[in-house]
Amino acid sequence: MPSPLENLMILDLTHVLAGPFCSQSLSALGARVIKVERPGTGDDTRAFPPFKDGESVYFNGLNHGKQSIALDLKAPEDREIFERLLARADVLLENYRPGVMDRLGYGYEALHARFPHLIYGSVSGYGQTGPDALKPAYDMVVQARGGVMSITGEKGREPVRVGASVGDIVAGMYLAQEVLAALYDRDRTGLGQMIDVAMLDGQLSIMEHAVAMVAAGGPAPEPAGARHPSITPFETFHAEDGLFVIAAGNDTLFQRLCDALGHPHWATAPRFATNAARCENARLLKRMIELETLLRPKAHWIDLLEKAGVPTGEVQNVAQAMQDPQILARNMVIEVAGRDGRAPQKAAGNPIKMSGLPDPATRPPAPALDGDRAAILAWLDEGPDAGPAT
Amino acid sequence: MPSPLENLMILDLTHVLAGPFCSQSLSALGARVIKVERPGTGDDTRAFPPFKDGESVYFNGLNHGKQSIALDLKAPEDREIFERLLARADVLLENYRPGVMDRLGYGYEALHARFPHLIYGSVSGYGQTGPDALKPAYDMVVQARGGVMSITGEKGREPVRVGASVGDIVAGMYLAQEVLAALYDRDRTGLGQMIDVAMLDGQLSIMEHAVAMVAAGGPAPEPAGARHPSITPFETFHAEDGLFVIAAGNDTLFQRLCDALGHPHWATAPRFATNAARCENARLLKRMIELETLLRPKAHWIDLLEKAGVPTGEVQNVAQAMQDPQILARNMVIEVAGRDGRAPQKAAGNPIKMSGLPDPATRPPAPALDGDRAAILAWLDEGPDAGPAT
Repeated sequence: MPSPLENLMILDLTHVLAGPFCSQSLSALGARVIKVERPGTGDDTRAFPPFKDGESVYFNGLNHGKQSIALDLKAPEDREIFERLLARADVLLENYRPGVMDRLGYGYEALHARFPHLIYGSVSGYGQTGPDALKPAYDMVVQARGGVMSITGEKGREPVRVGASVGDIVAGMYLAQEVLAALYDRDRTGLGQMIDVAMLDGQLSIMEHAVAMVAAGGPAPEPAGARHPSITPFETFHAEDGLFVIAAGNDTLFQRLCDALGHPHWATAPRFATNAARCENARLLKRMIELETLLRPKAHWIDLLEKAGVPTGEVQNVAQAMQDPQILARNMVIEVAGRDGRAPQKAAGNPIKMSGLPDPATRPPAPALDGDRAAILAWLDEGPDAGPAT
Repeated sequence: MPSPLENLMILDLTHVLAGPFCSQSLSALGARVIKVERPGTGDDTRAFPPFKDGESVYFNGLNHGKQSIALDLKAPEDREIFERLLARADVLLENYRPGVMDRLGYGYEALHARFPHLIYGSVSGYGQTGPDALKPAYDMVVQARGGVMSITGEKGREPVRVGASVGDIVAGMYLAQEVLAALYDRDRTGLGQMIDVAMLDGQLSIMEHAVAMVAAGGPAPEPAGARHPSITPFETFHAEDGLFVIAAGNDTLFQRLCDALGHPHWATAPRFATNAARCENARLLKRMIELETLLRPKAHWIDLLEKAGVPTGEVQNVAQAMQDPQILARNMVIEVAGRDGRAPQKAAGNPIKMSGLPDPATRPPAPALDGDRAAILAWLDEGPDAGPAT
């Protein structure tokens, strides 16, 4: 069974997170990814902690199964190799500051004229257009500027950063989506196109509730803590041994919750009978619920509420999540093989589950810097119809 | 210029957020989306606040440009319509609890046998497999169980929910990505396939740093507040008039920051000379930087630091973000037309920017419940080669 992107080659100039996250997805879909790195140091994340056996676990988690070649795009002999790779590539990915690729002679217009089938995917902080296109941005800058931080944190206190790097990750996911749309389009037109992903754009797109509040003329939402901004009860509660979540999203679920807690009449009390009333009296309701939940461990409550059909779950740390039976059953913790006798490491699995896509529990290693140079050059010498090397 | 998904039809049984977010992206890429809703009430989000002119601004922001037909999938006459639609559909999207579609006679195996070209996209809380497949889950449950909450919040305090619904949104983005991969694959095989997106899977996939920390044998990371967990300074700072972000990700940027603040010697002081030392002394460094930044407004510092090449930016609320010149220049705040004389409303724009994709500033309205029934039935009567109705 060939994977969807079998026989495609992605030439990947990106580094750090958004771009490599995208090419990791495309690799999981079967594409061959050739990572072009800066000679000497390579992708910055090769130096990112944590380390194990002298290698960055961070880097390996984002780059397994890719090949690496180190090229100086200002040196004539390396440019020649790069251009031979371009002639064989289906997709070019880059995340330089806008203008850098043009100055190297590899801007979209120039490449589209020479390689009309090539799909050109750019990801940057602010995009290729607009007054701030040339300014630098990192994940945290777009989380802050885009508004996601402003709705994350404890009520009445300062906003916090989303612990996951959603500035980069969301952008990387849009880049993958657009590459796939462009590949589909190319089957019809024969032509590649230019993709322009901005990390800041992505942030605005993920705040459906907050954007709607402002669009309706209301004030900008503020951090709401460990709860949903407009549904009650939909938040964390203390059990005897820690936090868990109850998400009773409508009146029926609230009635079931009250029944399970042994207080069926709470559900019809005027203070709590509707979601609007519950939102108004959310702090009171939380204290009343915790008078019960504090008496027993969370496993008791989760079991009881699951049987009652009320959505609930633990608040797990990442070590716990990585041992969660459901997550393990879904092959969401995989093993990345180690190179040169190193031990394998664990990494997040591939969430792309398709009946036509293999989902192995062990994945090939991440490449050493420039580690595939000889194999890539040999593949180029075999000529344009040699197909992907293995 | 035809959009990439022109002439494709998405039959969309999903409701609330993850599925409709996916089909909104596919609609932006040019596909025709027929939203099949429950008679009487339709998509739950039609009743979600905020409202304007009697309509949910939330619903309209996620469903503009789609068509709606109300069908009871247990009623024979509606099942017949549904099956005629299936015969014309390229993609079916559904987010019922696993098993529901099977009981309706519309599980993957049954439909794949009758409509082998149909791509079948499912999204659910825990996926179609594993011990918890049948349990209900909402955004907040998977944020909690998947670990994202555990790394979000103030240091030393309880975790908070990510203000954006990343449990749903990330799942919706994976669903869109997989639909596109399956469409590309279908061009080669002629066959559709089954897509199985789990919200919980998606959460594990977005925590590159935290997963690497645990994979390296370290303790599970905890909330780090308004800062990056392992880079300093990379956090919010108080200016005279509010918060802004400084993201000085390496020694060079830190030197530039110290120069700009008028304290070039800070960069070489042993306490701050390396990122490791800065992380160790992060609170001291923050206080020292704020002794300067508190004296002037954030606009002053952002301008100064931008000129020095240090990544920086405001912490904006969502209303401010929706008026940000860069965001407006990128057409990231669009106008959704109102139906039947209603005023238009603002919504998040389409972050998918491709040279082959139009990016209009005004989009067609969201549908009334069952509002396109007559047009859809007429289109079916025109026969299988009639092409998409307009």
